[in-house]
This record gives sequence, structure tokens and C-alpha cells, in this order.
Amino acid sequence: MVMSPSQQLDATFAALADPTRRAILARLASGEASVNELAKPFSMSQPAISKHLKVLERAGLISRGQDAQRRPRRLDAKPLKNATGWLEKYRQFWEGSFQRLDVLLDEMKAREKKPALNKREERSR
Amino acid sequence: MVMSPSQQLDATFAALADPTRRAILARLASGEASVNELAKPFSMSQPAISKHLKVLERAGLISRGQDAQRRPRRLDAKPLKNATGWLEKYRQFWEGSFQRLDVLLDEMKAREKKPALNKREERSR
Repeated sequence: MVMSPSQQLDATFAALADPTRRAILARLASGEASVNELAKPFSMSQPAISKHLKVLERAGLISRGQDAQRRPRRLDAKPLKNATGWLEKYRQFWEGSFQRLDVLLDEMKAREKKPALNKREERSR
Repeated sequence: MVMSPSQQLDATFAALADPTRRAILARLASGEASVNELAKPFSMSQPAISKHLKVLERAGLISRGQDAQRRPRRLDAKPLKNATGWLEKYRQFWEGSFQRLDVLLDEMKAREKKPALNKREERSR
């Protein structure tokens, strides 16, 4: 199945939106592992783990190693690179410069409103 | 509602797993906007957009500006920073050094198997 870059981001972010799947990726970061080895630390049934692995596989985040018996899974990090690329566009915002401007504008608007209110209050006196 | 860091990541990644919600964040990156202004480019009903905004709000990705009439939404980038922080741990993998090692190991294993196969073939001759 060929996915558009947008569909790829959908699949990647959806796959990452689960603590078990993130833990599986963290485990695979230290080397490839079989389904049994992956299931062990999670006190989860193998079918439950297999379901998570399918989501990760469909997102292109894991693939299968060459060993036909163990069928080990290994991390494929390219989708993580693309997801980070998307997020990086917002770096300027979390680094503060843009957000501070927004807050400043709000404060200016709030200050503009107050004198107007005061004038009406004065008139009604 | 106070979320654990893991729940916060769940909510952030789930919120980002949708092209409309990513487009809303991209729009808000150029300045705050009312729900009507946000709905316009998507040819979506206001309730449909409001549903997406609720998901983004629950994830802490947007908040409401001071103007009580327009109730503009604005981008809150902190969860994006945290998500990027999680992804950054995998940078070494997409930069290739670790993945290449995995591929190399697989190639070595594949090469080890081939001579064994050849020996059996020779014997059967």
C-alpha cells in the first residue's frame, strides 16, 4: 500500500499515540527482538502484542529481520524522521518568540478595552 | 484534568494523527483565529470543526484568546516540544548509524547460512 506523505503522518502519529507501542519501539531501539521477547515485559497476550506490532508495521515503524524462524522485528526510524520534520516547523513557537507576541497582543487588547469601559462608567455616573 | 507525561504524549500524538487537525495548527501558526475563520478553508460544518478543536484543546495544543466575543483559538506549542523530545531519542536511528549495523548483521547471518546450504547441496550431489 502506497501512502501519501499526509497519510504516512496520520499512520505514524496514530501508531505513536499508545504507551505500549512507544515502549515496543524503545525496546527495539536496543536491538531486534522476536514477538515472544517483545511480549514478555508487558504481561500481555501474544495476540495483543501482535495487534500492536501490526499497527507499527503498517506505519512502517518496524520491519522483519532475515531470520525466518524467529522473525525478529526491528526498528525502522524513517517515519520518525518525517514526523520530527513536521514538528520542527513549530520549533519557533515553543522556543517562545511567537507565543510571547500573541500574549502581548492579548494584553494590549485587554488594556484597550478597560479605558473604554471606564468612559462608559463615567458617563453613567 | 492533570495528565501524566505518557498520557500527554498519547493525547498529543492522537491529536496530530489527522490532516484537518494538522492543518488547523498550521493555520494557527500564522496567528490566532475564530472558529468561523478556522472552518472556512475546510468546507466543513462548524460542529465538525468544533469537534477537532476539542481534541486539540484537550491535548493542550490550542487555547482561547482573551476576546470574549470572537473566542479566538491560538496555538500552544509546548506539547509539540515534548513530542519532539520523545522523537529526538531516535535521531541516531534515522541518521543511519544503528540501522546500518542491523542491516550488516542480517547480511552476515544470511552469508553464514549460504555456505551451509551449499555444503548440503554438495553432499547430495
